[in-house]
Amino acid sequence: MNTPVTPEQQAEIDNLRQSPRQTLRVISEGMERHLYTAHPVLDHGFVRVVDYMGDDAAICQAARVSYGRGTKSVQNDEGLIRYLMRHWHSTPFEMCEVKFHVKLPVFVARQWIRHRTANVNEYSARYSILDREFYIPAPEHLAAQSQKNNQGRDEVLQGEEAARVLELLREDAMRSYDHYEAMLSQDGQQGLARELARMNLPANIYTQWYWKVDLHNLLHFLRLRADAHAQFEIRAYADALCGIVADWVPAAFAAFRDYRMDSVSLSAQAVAVLKRRLAGETVTQEQSGMSAREWREFEEIWG
Amino acid sequence: MNTPVTPEQQAEIDNLRQSPRQTLRVISEGMERHLYTAHPVLDHGFVRVVDYMGDDAAICQAARVSYGRGTKSVQNDEGLIRYLMRHWHSTPFEMCEVKFHVKLPVFVARQWIRHRTANVNEYSARYSILDREFYIPAPEHLAAQSQKNNQGRDEVLQGEEAARVLELLREDAMRSYDHYEAMLSQDGQQGLARELARMNLPANIYTQWYWKVDLHNLLHFLRLRADAHAQFEIRAYADALCGIVADWVPAAFAAFRDYRMDSVSLSAQAVAVLKRRLAGETVTQEQSGMSAREWREFEEIWG
Amino acid sequence: MNTPVTPEQQAEIDNLRQSPRQTLRVISEGMERHLYTAHPVLDHGFVRVVDYMGDDAAICQAARVSYGRGTKSVQNDEGLIRYLMRHWHSTPFEMCEVKFHVKLPVFVARQWIRHRTANVNEYSARYSILDREFYIPAPEHLAAQSQKNNQGRDEVLQGEEAARVLELLREDAMRSYDHYEAMLSQDGQQGLARELARMNLPANIYTQWYWKVDLHNLLHFLRLRADAHAQFEIRAYADALCGIVADWVPAAFAAFRDYRMDSVSLSAQAVAVLKRRLAGETVTQEQSGMSAREWREFEEIWG
Amino acid sequence: MNTPVTPEQQAEIDNLRQSPRQTLRVISEGMERHLYTAHPVLDHGFVRVVDYMGDDAAICQAARVSYGRGTKSVQNDEGLIRYLMRHWHSTPFEMCEVKFHVKLPVFVARQWIRHRTANVNEYSARYSILDREFYIPAPEHLAAQSQKNNQGRDEVLQGEEAARVLELLREDAMRSYDHYEAMLSQDGQQGLARELARMNLPANIYTQWYWKVDLHNLLHFLRLRADAHAQFEIRAYADALCGIVADWVPAAFAAFRDYRMDSVSLSAQAVAVLKRRLAGETVTQEQSGMSAREWREFEEIWG
Repeated sequence: MNTPVTPEQQAEIDNLRQSPRQTLRVISEGMERHLYTAHPVLDHGFVRVVDYMGDDAAICQAARVSYGRGTKSVQNDEGLIRYLMRHWHSTPFEMCEVKFHVKLPVFVARQWIRHRTANVNEYSARYSILDREFYIPAPEHLAAQSQKNNQGRDEVLQGEEAARVLELLREDAMRSYDHYEAMLSQDGQQGLARELARMNLPANIYTQWYWKVDLHNLLHFLRLRADAHAQFEIRAYADALCGIVADWVPAAFAAFRDYRMDSVSLSAQAVAVLKRRLAGETVTQEQSGMSAREWREFEEIWG
Repeated sequence: MNTPVTPEQQAEIDNLRQSPRQTLRVISEGMERHLYTAHPVLDHGFVRVVDYMGDDAAICQAARVSYGRGTKSVQNDEGLIRYLMRHWHSTPFEMCEVKFHVKLPVFVARQWIRHRTANVNEYSARYSILDREFYIPAPEHLAAQSQKNNQGRDEVLQGEEAARVLELLREDAMRSYDHYEAMLSQDGQQGLARELARMNLPANIYTQWYWKVDLHNLLHFLRLRADAHAQFEIRAYADALCGIVADWVPAAFAAFRDYRMDSVSLSAQAVAVLKRRLAGETVTQEQSGMSAREWREFEEIWG
Repeated sequence: MNTPVTPEQQAEIDNLRQSPRQTLRVISEGMERHLYTAHPVLDHGFVRVVDYMGDDAAICQAARVSYGRGTKSVQNDEGLIRYLMRHWHSTPFEMCEVKFHVKLPVFVARQWIRHRTANVNEYSARYSILDREFYIPAPEHLAAQSQKNNQGRDEVLQGEEAARVLELLREDAMRSYDHYEAMLSQDGQQGLARELARMNLPANIYTQWYWKVDLHNLLHFLRLRADAHAQFEIRAYADALCGIVADWVPAAFAAFRDYRMDSVSLSAQAVAVLKRRLAGETVTQEQSGMSAREWREFEEIWG
Repeated sequence: MNTPVTPEQQAEIDNLRQSPRQTLRVISEGMERHLYTAHPVLDHGFVRVVDYMGDDAAICQAARVSYGRGTKSVQNDEGLIRYLMRHWHSTPFEMCEVKFHVKLPVFVARQWIRHRTANVNEYSARYSILDREFYIPAPEHLAAQSQKNNQGRDEVLQGEEAARVLELLREDAMRSYDHYEAMLSQDGQQGLARELARMNLPANIYTQWYWKVDLHNLLHFLRLRADAHAQFEIRAYADALCGIVADWVPAAFAAFRDYRMDSVSLSAQAVAVLKRRLAGETVTQEQSGMSAREWREFEEIWG
């Protein structure tokens, strides 16, 4: 069972949720409901919104460099947001900002941190001692190596092999942590420095960080990490974030879905093939100017 | 007189200031007072806070990667903030964010934009027509070229020379704008494209933008632009921002003042000279390992 | 006639071009030919390559994190580059870098600088005196304001209107510069500070800068600025850069052309419409889920 | 013994070192000597220069936005570089760029990657299988946890405790890798996906990446990571990089040493205390306006 937050933490969060205060700032009602709520991800992880700035209207306000909230209707705002998204205007979306607290396995953190245009404060294992919490995949996510795609997954492992893998992961995690504690211990010995002892811990241990990012860069992150080609574990976080963003800035998220997530990018060659097909022609890979791999990717969508 | 905001804009701002709403987010009381208030700068410019995220406690919360606001006292928070500033920890300060609406002359905007780690939406002179508003220096800021420092100012111009300069600046501004309007006009002619007509406008015309930045990068901006070596006109904006930041995050701003603005950076050579002086020795430039210029800069502080 | 480089500058450039030196670094033969050559742009501008790092093979070398240049064939490298471009892998393209010296009108510089992920050193008008060089559009680029698109151009101005515009632009430029010189003059007067006098200069005056950028961010710049919707004047620079990049990294540039410049991005709605059309159905705007504007943009490509 | 490069890799590197080519670009003789040479760091790591752009003169050339290399003497260049460094001008230093190939333990990579203004391509453990190489500290670096500083080290562990730690680190590394291989194996079983199996590997396993950075950001990295407060293991890399940079841009590195590495930053309070001391006064902590901790840090330098 996933209980990522301790009772003490929950009490503190509940307390904060019961103390609304007055502000002159822009409010997103959808986002207020998420504040301080830890959304569970994987077996011990979570994402929770710590703070946010802006809403759909703030995107338009910035695009128009206007005073106040502008006098335009919600419908006009939606049209403008769709226009901005369609034509790759990025700066108005940068005018919204969000700060998350995330608990995640180290190997997920290592992928995540590659998105550089964000602010991060990570729990320091030089300074503090990490908790005994490791990600162990659920049986249905214990996938075999893909034979076709070097960085892909195939079917789920079955039977004895699956059991053996789970046992190895669990045992190695526990033993590594036992030895981590043994090396740190100052009971009858000096105790190894924390910054050294942590090197024994495997990449499925959980870490935590504050991650602050603007909406434009968050959507770029989601485009890559909520994608079918992303590793399942980071996708689980991206999916949780998608749900939050959809409540925060519904118009921007809908435009993002239509023009990014569910959009298709056609190469010059693919445009030419589609035009010939629309004219009734049959086009083969040889005639398409595409490589075999591109053609396969093209056919997956267009048949 | 400086009346940067029109009556309609003021009415809208007043309206917003009278509609506080409830939020679960962190509030900075000092900053709430600034929201939507246009602080005049130069003859037609202003800065006003559109939105903000975080306060002093949020810096500590991120540094500790803590749940809730943490249980530490305000005094502990101050000590931590001073420690973080002294030891050049930048990421906790990145966890606060602020969005300004700024009206400023183009030549100031050109200096300002060199600070790249920020989000900007500028009023588009491709899309819209600029207003007839130009920066004309107050007589006491009409400075002569420095003879010692290529990029510095000397005494204030006097008498006829000052009058002549002001007249040239005013006349050229008005004539350029008249011609801008004449070229744009669609009265009895096609009218030149806006994106072309704007090229006739001088660098003292006012533009506007939304500027969003995190606290770390804002402080870096203030360190360079609220400095005595910065051009007076951008310093006027930096000074206005300093006043706002001091109300927003008082502990962080005090630490910034002590460890950045009012601090002195000593080179290896300067450290050696000071140590010898403290030991009672008299050290000359020749013995100091400093160039004549460095020595002059050193003596300005240490005599 | 465009003679952006003075005879003295040309002599220095010629001298540099005659002094090849030995290096162990990667060489791009196509780029060596461009080094130090000033390509004229607009009436007084230019772009010239000052230095570069990497070539097509360096992209693959980084993608493979390999020693040496790798043993793969040129054909394999091309396939890998196309794959990386198609799937939006950006980091290998960041491993190539280029440094340009550019002379350009200030209003173009103001658009250009919005691309933040680059390094810039601009000629300082605080420190130095600008030259008397202004961009005056060629008659065939003196376009009227578009009636349909606020930030677009329409037909070229004709006859008297065109003549009047050119005269205004020329006269205002010359008069502004005369007054700039008059204010700076220290002949019988103190002379206004350079940092102030420059405010009188219009946005078509030329400035210069060194601009250094990685290939990924350069291609992003070109995608937006070599586009039909970009203002003609910045597009002129982008087109010149395209020619240089095509010689520097031919495989990467070909992939960029196919997957970015000549590609088409289809929204979820557009994908659905095309699929129905391919199935023989006729779809109207009302049935498409697209706004009138989106539909118009869609029909421009697909009929 | 440290033999980070395989014989095949060495052969390829030797081959590249024997094939100089002609270029019109700027050459740094000091840097050419480093090209392709793998400098050993820790037990299995290395840094090697893959490519570079610019030299000391290129910094000045950009600062002056000049044609060619400029006609100034080397001495003038040094003075300008020292001036730029002293007054925190960062953009000219951004005009030099360098690309390294680095092999390093994952826990070092995690600290390193926090420096965001750089380009990185890391060896992918989703795509490929990692080698059996782990960092095991040399006995003289097996330090105890500091009692005074949460993120610091104390004396070196001795005797049995040291032996036990080394044994635990070695055994856990080997066992984790055995199990990694066992889970990946497709011998009589499906084989776990690489992207999952890697989660079992501890943070002292070696990874590799290409790291490209401009000189300004590299010096900022070195200032923080070649510092006495940095963890020994990343400092070992920073020290190796310092040696390379000193050969590449000797004037810039000397200025960096004097004005950054060996400089001292005095707070407003510290300036006041030193001035009083210079005037012959004795100042206590109570009178200094500093906290006990600041005072301790102050006395470490000034007695």
